[in-house]
Amino acid sequence: MNGAESLITTLVNNDIEVCFANPGTSEMHFVAALDEVEGMRCVLCLFEGVLTGAADGYARMAGKPASTLLHLGPGLGNGLANIHNAKKGYVPVVNIVGDHATYHLAYDAPLTSDIEGVAAPVSHWVHTSRDPGDIARDAAEAVRQAGFSRVATLVLPADVSWGDNPHGAEEAVEIAPPATVPDARIDEAVRILRTGEECMIMIGGREVTLEQGLKLSRIGRACGARVGTDTFPTRIQRGAGSAVLERLPYLAEMAVDHISSVKHLVLIGAVAPVSFFAYPGVPSAFAPEGCEPFVLAQPRDDVDQVLDALLERLDAGAVEPEVYALDIPEAPSGGLDANTAAQALAHCMPQDAVVVDEAITSGLAVFPSTFSTRPHDWLSLTGGSIGWGLPAAVGAAVACPQRKVICLEGDGSAMYTISALWTMAREKLDVVVIIFNNRKYSILELEFGRTGARGGTPGPKAASTLDIGGPDMDFVAIAEGMGVPAIRATSADEFSLALSGAMEVKGPRLIDAIVPTVF
Amino acid sequence: MNGAESLITTLVNNDIEVCFANPGTSEMHFVAALDEVEGMRCVLCLFEGVLTGAADGYARMAGKPASTLLHLGPGLGNGLANIHNAKKGYVPVVNIVGDHATYHLAYDAPLTSDIEGVAAPVSHWVHTSRDPGDIARDAAEAVRQAGFSRVATLVLPADVSWGDNPHGAEEAVEIAPPATVPDARIDEAVRILRTGEECMIMIGGREVTLEQGLKLSRIGRACGARVGTDTFPTRIQRGAGSAVLERLPYLAEMAVDHISSVKHLVLIGAVAPVSFFAYPGVPSAFAPEGCEPFVLAQPRDDVDQVLDALLERLDAGAVEPEVYALDIPEAPSGGLDANTAAQALAHCMPQDAVVVDEAITSGLAVFPSTFSTRPHDWLSLTGGSIGWGLPAAVGAAVACPQRKVICLEGDGSAMYTISALWTMAREKLDVVVIIFNNRKYSILELEFGRTGARGGTPGPKAASTLDIGGPDMDFVAIAEGMGVPAIRATSADEFSLALSGAMEVKGPRLIDAIVPTVF
Repeated sequence: MNGAESLITTLVNNDIEVCFANPGTSEMHFVAALDEVEGMRCVLCLFEGVLTGAADGYARMAGKPASTLLHLGPGLGNGLANIHNAKKGYVPVVNIVGDHATYHLAYDAPLTSDIEGVAAPVSHWVHTSRDPGDIARDAAEAVRQAGFSRVATLVLPADVSWGDNPHGAEEAVEIAPPATVPDARIDEAVRILRTGEECMIMIGGREVTLEQGLKLSRIGRACGARVGTDTFPTRIQRGAGSAVLERLPYLAEMAVDHISSVKHLVLIGAVAPVSFFAYPGVPSAFAPEGCEPFVLAQPRDDVDQVLDALLERLDAGAVEPEVYALDIPEAPSGGLDANTAAQALAHCMPQDAVVVDEAITSGLAVFPSTFSTRPHDWLSLTGGSIGWGLPAAVGAAVACPQRKVICLEGDGSAMYTISALWTMAREKLDVVVIIFNNRKYSILELEFGRTGARGGTPGPKAASTLDIGGPDMDFVAIAEGMGVPAIRATSADEFSLALSGAMEVKGPRLIDAIVPTVF
Repeated sequence: MNGAESLITTLVNNDIEVCFANPGTSEMHFVAALDEVEGMRCVLCLFEGVLTGAADGYARMAGKPASTLLHLGPGLGNGLANIHNAKKGYVPVVNIVGDHATYHLAYDAPLTSDIEGVAAPVSHWVHTSRDPGDIARDAAEAVRQAGFSRVATLVLPADVSWGDNPHGAEEAVEIAPPATVPDARIDEAVRILRTGEECMIMIGGREVTLEQGLKLSRIGRACGARVGTDTFPTRIQRGAGSAVLERLPYLAEMAVDHISSVKHLVLIGAVAPVSFFAYPGVPSAFAPEGCEPFVLAQPRDDVDQVLDALLERLDAGAVEPEVYALDIPEAPSGGLDANTAAQALAHCMPQDAVVVDEAITSGLAVFPSTFSTRPHDWLSLTGGSIGWGLPAAVGAAVACPQRKVICLEGDGSAMYTISALWTMAREKLDVVVIIFNNRKYSILELEFGRTGARGGTPGPKAASTLDIGGPDMDFVAIAEGMGVPAIRATSADEFSLALSGAMEVKGPRLIDAIVPTVF
């Protein structure tokens, strides 16, 4: 077999069964090998930022990495922002980046670039295969490095791809389990939680499962601690029957208030809460004076082990968790805004939906309105780089073909990777996209004020830079141009009707929801 | 003034008067400063790959750099591919990349990344300002480094932007002139050109002006040398009255044939011809055995000085250049394909049009059909990373508001940076976009065969990966969704009518030209 066949076979042997791809000439032998090796589904995306975001959404829902296929340094560059988001969310990704043949690099052809240099800032591991005989071993190492929560980037020169590999493929590698937390650290956490002073336990990292949330709630009730999550959890199971967990507010001012009385902050997988951005006169770290966050478990540590140990040590096993009861609102009527849209969503969200939230300001309104609806998963923008939502919805839908994926999108953020709609249509993915179309970079209007620039009031040029109306984008036309049936909603009634209609069919649908700004 | 005002004032003092921007929270003080400083036009783009491509197209036509404004490492990542294209075309760009406040970086907030690391592979110069007092000096240095043909990337932390700068702005810096070529090298070139053996002079680099082409033609005729250009010149003045210059073919096999009889290859600004990609059994370098390319001038050297010296030394001043006579074809009729589209374009292209060519396979047909039409400029995809055309057309139109910009786009390449259409509509740019919609990655079908993968015949999965029909993209709907009037053409008659109609109005228009594949 050639190098490409040995690579793909090794990936398949390691249970990597989807490749999100946008290939070029240097990857043609990889593309050819897809027909020679059984078991790899190739999902074509029209832009690399779509495919890397899809790999992120897929891995979050499948619990294992997908492969990407990227064309040289510029293709990797196009995918960089969503690799960043995956990295910040502890999501495993195996990137395959094609390069020129090794002997061709010396000629500095137009597409030659420093691929390892581009990859390094967003990868935990970067390696270039130099010989077809090495590629299987290197691919296996990439899978091992990606493990449960890392980004591995393997550069595949064209001649390594097309050259003969006498060693064949590698079998499945062993993925290191999450690290165990030593007893001494658990002892210290128990001591803290028993001080009688106000404690808060924050959970985060790769995911917050239903079971983890319930355990945390029991623990919190047993010792009187508050329990909560990061602002933007990578994946969290929510809805009726899930534990009541506080969510750290996005706005620094509110976040500081939120934990101002906390004396002890115990972190299980979550990182110490800090401001998304810096603002003049606002602290970067949220914990109040004298409260030193205690890292009980790092994001890649064994969160279940820690929770089980705390349950036992705090006699919390029999404590009833605080959970959301099922409480489905009526369909809304009247004006359409983020709140009525949220109500409509809570009304008709099906069991086991997967919500991908990149609605930015509008999303801040939808999140709290959906605690008590049917059980679902919620994926957040972990790395803050917009253009993630539509791609992540592609990936989630590929991972979970039996579940409805609901993508909450801002109009501004949708436009970074809008061609994801085409992949939804091509693959007939069961995704409902809701565009919260307020014709603004609404978050930036808010942020302009918060940074205090120009006294908080934009002048005409600045205001124009935050305003993405003129021309207004018509997402119905854009979606239909890419093969996704779409409808516009300008009232809560229209929106409810469109949404419940979309829930009743399989396949992609888009709703262009014309809403006012939240702030 | 604050750091941002000092930065923008310094840029304006250096004749940088356009900023292509997609800002975020960390750049709000820069955005605010646009209203405090006179003279900087801000052009909002909905995606960073659009704005970096626009900066490239602008600089090619304005002959001076624009500024970009990018949001942190991921925003720079999104713009990376088109910065790569600019770098490979010797196009000057001044990138401004916002970062978190210097003191905020230690907290590893979600959007924290190694910006200098991301920038380095596509920049000749990278620097982070550390203090508001330094920013004017650093901005001036960025302008100096960009000079005529380099990429300079300046990282601007938020606190450097909002902090007070007691030193104010910097005045205009001196840009180093292109390097003079020593007499000895010119002597050697003259010696080579007088050997009586087959010589070819290739010109390239930053641009090939009308005057340079005519001089080269005189020189070639005086000494009997063939004269030609790179495959993808950064900018070349063409059409009636321009010199007859050979263009190096794209396909390696044809390029090798094209220069197989050449004994001496003299390079003026052009680089030694090499294959775009590597293919099994095909040489990387095109020059035949025994022909060592002679570098008379590097791309950043003084090409005019070299041409003038050769003119004089070879007594070519009075030689008539070989030029294209004006020869405008009739409007075509019948079936629409790349050739009839090219004929229609040659028929109605107005004087001084700027053609931006990213039509890939279809573009290969259009180029030779437009030698004899009215004088125009032609911009090519220098770095090979697709998603450049629509953005570059935005930039060219901003630079040349009195000239018609014609953007030749492939359907596949259009989708990388499709939101450029919105910026065309917003800024009312005078651009006619022609989508050569063959519903294929046609170039990849060709390349698949050339690489010899799977005997040159794709299997079903590979074939599906090269095929971007299903769903077919409707570029009329997509364009209208972003505010650009559009029309579909399925025959040469429809296309001619649509094209001549678009030529008669100001403002953006798109023609979705349904064509068969060229190969």
